Amino acid sequence: MYEMILNLDGEKKNLYEQIYEYIREEIRKGRIRCGERLPSTRILAGQLDVSRSTAQLAYEQLLSEGYIEAVPCKGYFVCEMDGLYHLEQETAVSEENETTETRKYLYDFTPNGIDLEHFPYAVWRKLSREVLQDDQKELFHLGDPKGEYALRKAISSYLHQARGVNAQPSQIVIGAGNDYLQMLLSRMLGTKRRIAMESPGYRHAYDIFQRLGYDCCTVSMDRYGMDVRELQKSGADMAYVMPSHQYPMGIVMPVRRRQELLQWAVMKEERYIIEDDYDSEFRYIGKPIPSLQGSDTCQKVIYIGTFSKSIMPSLRISYLVLPMRLLERYEQVGRSFSCTVSRTDQKMLQLFMERGYFERHLNKMRALYRSKHDILLGELRRMKGIKRIFGERSGVHLLVQMEDKRTEQELTDCAGQAGIRVYPLSEYCLDDRTCETMMLLGYATMKEEEIRTAAGLLERSWERGKR
Amino acid sequence: MYEMILNLDGEKKNLYEQIYEYIREEIRKGRIRCGERLPSTRILAGQLDVSRSTAQLAYEQLLSEGYIEAVPCKGYFVCEMDGLYHLEQETAVSEENETTETRKYLYDFTPNGIDLEHFPYAVWRKLSREVLQDDQKELFHLGDPKGEYALRKAISSYLHQARGVNAQPSQIVIGAGNDYLQMLLSRMLGTKRRIAMESPGYRHAYDIFQRLGYDCCTVSMDRYGMDVRELQKSGADMAYVMPSHQYPMGIVMPVRRRQELLQWAVMKEERYIIEDDYDSEFRYIGKPIPSLQGSDTCQKVIYIGTFSKSIMPSLRISYLVLPMRLLERYEQVGRSFSCTVSRTDQKMLQLFMERGYFERHLNKMRALYRSKHDILLGELRRMKGIKRIFGERSGVHLLVQMEDKRTEQELTDCAGQAGIRVYPLSEYCLDDRTCETMMLLGYATMKEEEIRTAAGLLERSWERGKR
Repeated sequence: MYEMILNLDGEKKNLYEQIYEYIREEIRKGRIRCGERLPSTRILAGQLDVSRSTAQLAYEQLLSEGYIEAVPCKGYFVCEMDGLYHLEQETAVSEENETTETRKYLYDFTPNGIDLEHFPYAVWRKLSREVLQDDQKELFHLGDPKGEYALRKAISSYLHQARGVNAQPSQIVIGAGNDYLQMLLSRMLGTKRRIAMESPGYRHAYDIFQRLGYDCCTVSMDRYGMDVRELQKSGADMAYVMPSHQYPMGIVMPVRRRQELLQWAVMKEERYIIEDDYDSEFRYIGKPIPSLQGSDTCQKVIYIGTFSKSIMPSLRISYLVLPMRLLERYEQVGRSFSCTVSRTDQKMLQLFMERGYFERHLNKMRALYRSKHDILLGELRRMKGIKRIFGERSGVHLLVQMEDKRTEQELTDCAGQAGIRVYPLSEYCLDDRTCETMMLLGYATMKEEEIRTAAGLLERSWERGKR
Repeated sequence: MYEMILNLDGEKKNLYEQIYEYIREEIRKGRIRCGERLPSTRILAGQLDVSRSTAQLAYEQLLSEGYIEAVPCKGYFVCEMDGLYHLEQETAVSEENETTETRKYLYDFTPNGIDLEHFPYAVWRKLSREVLQDDQKELFHLGDPKGEYALRKAISSYLHQARGVNAQPSQIVIGAGNDYLQMLLSRMLGTKRRIAMESPGYRHAYDIFQRLGYDCCTVSMDRYGMDVRELQKSGADMAYVMPSHQYPMGIVMPVRRRQELLQWAVMKEERYIIEDDYDSEFRYIGKPIPSLQGSDTCQKVIYIGTFSKSIMPSLRISYLVLPMRLLERYEQVGRSFSCTVSRTDQKMLQLFMERGYFERHLNKMRALYRSKHDILLGELRRMKGIKRIFGERSGVHLLVQMEDKRTEQELTDCAGQAGIRVYPLSEYCLDDRTCETMMLLGYATMKEEEIRTAAGLLERSWERGKR
């Protein structure tokens, strides 16, 4: 029988753990052979001068993990485990070094960020306190896979009023961001489909669809948006469009083109249109452009909206409005997937909407963005060398076309040397077709004064760089 | 030229909106024909007795939406849109009625819930206040797709200490719940795979894999867990196991079986093991059982963990620990998908872990569940008619086998008539093979006194129902 040579240290871990670890290592290293009998707990306790219950605990742990087995009336034996698999850990991998190299710019005309200076943090904190009260414990259980009914109701009534979307709460599915909702859709609709995307367009959605296994194709745009004849020829059975404010071109799809698009969808049973209404809240002249979904009488439009632009990108709350005809498919395939947004966040957003904070916030942001929009537009209009400006009236970026024939790379480099980051349109082209030479200038993240200064620096850098 | 007959109401909406809506309806209904010229803004203003800028605004909205077009020097004309698609909304669908029928039970031995009475809500609120401070604005921008580095670091060190998991923060991917992470994995690994699942097992994971398009097969278990010889024959290239505490059987996989399983995975390049370590925190005797991942030296184990059981189900924070060999695939395919958990929630959890609240909470819950476990075990041990009890020592449910030959349905019905809900094991069987007649009794959601009362009622109901 095996005899234990072990110095126990009363200062360190539990005695039983020390014994357990010692025996485990002896077994792992093959120093106690398989099938060998271990001392009884009484003998072990005597050998090591510990209590019998300590010895018992050590053996129980070894039993639980399967290193030894107890044979009634005979004692404890080492289990067989020779050479099957190396249990010893190899050298640890060195800690990663997570750094992302970012070129430093003085001013960044990014078209992606939002203005976070004016978010009503105090209100949000207040709602958070309220929601996290002790008496709201039901919020900590798992909720409806579609998202909370009350929030879906609030979204439904907002969409009806602000976007002309016809959505019963039952048609709404809340999810943690558009990427996730695209994933969920892919489960419901299958991936044996071809999706037509606008180009220039929203590259991220394109990438996500590709990674989800879709066959993505691009369809070019004229000044009314996606070319429906080209769509027809593309063989696609889904079209992903942004009719209220195309990104990045800023095109508003006119009613006739919308009809043509809906007509295309109606022609085949399995055709759908995905309407991404990502930033339709920000329109500075006239009423908001109504959604495409609102004029879809044949249940062909899948509407996708987000609070990333209107509240904050890190909140991770987006939603789908499913056409009635897809509800059954959701029940069959989609409902299994638990909701990806925490109920506390859902409740906070619900109260934020119900109590009018959301509307007030949107109004404030609209005024703020409008003012920034006007400043940048003013600067660009009086800037030398600019031929045309596109994408006015809505969104949070403008597009400019220069008079001279410099390439996008040259213009980007000139700006970069002056510490200004601008975004060439070609980055948004999803295919090989050449698109016009344009620059995107986003203004959401900059302060008004910064827009003025940056525009001045940009003008000088582009003037200096002229051939 | 078309003449407008319109009564403006100064009390109601903006005048321009009324004009816009009127003209839009006239166009939609075909009362103004396509190609027809509209009055100039000057004439319209005169006709309706409004300012010219009001008329201008109405036309601009119609222009934006594509109902009319402006021909330079000629005026405004109605666009063509005849009969392409019905613009008029059909009758609205009636509001849904979301009710879920639930039979009322006095006591529910659900094995799924958790005890939420003892969550440190005050701490959580405090952390929430702290995180939502004005000066933490970077938290409102979009974060790392893998989740915040600081949280991944906290999880990495927790996993190392508590579960023996070897995980660099770079291997951890945070996501909103296991379903989402299974979805993400399916993107990285492809779905042209066969996944072997334990049966009886975790039906939800099985359903999710099926809905993700996987070919799922079941592999039976002996008292050590998944039968590796059967696994070998199954043709599966992935195995989904719960080695520390199998759900629902409560089996702890001994070290030899673990080695066999790892050995199986090593034999082919594309084989992986998914280790679901869903409630390993709750073990009442001895040390926690180490994870399978911790003894995987060949980068074959994908570890999946969650805070649903240890904090709250509605928090929606789970994580994957990817083996090093999958990191490149994550970069290629997974990184595009934005993180599904809000950064404020991530930050709160990070602080909760870093400041020792998580450990304290786990210790408290372990003691609490242990006490409930002991009470239920005591009740069951002195209960008449029970042959065997399984699944002691860990988890939050027990399994019982009766002496008599009543079916699960009969036992469930007897209990139900006394207002007690119990869960037959067959519900967890994922294939047609008959499994033993057992009942699951979960105790997490019940108070100690309720467990005693419910156990008494259960005993009497089962005694009464004897044939």
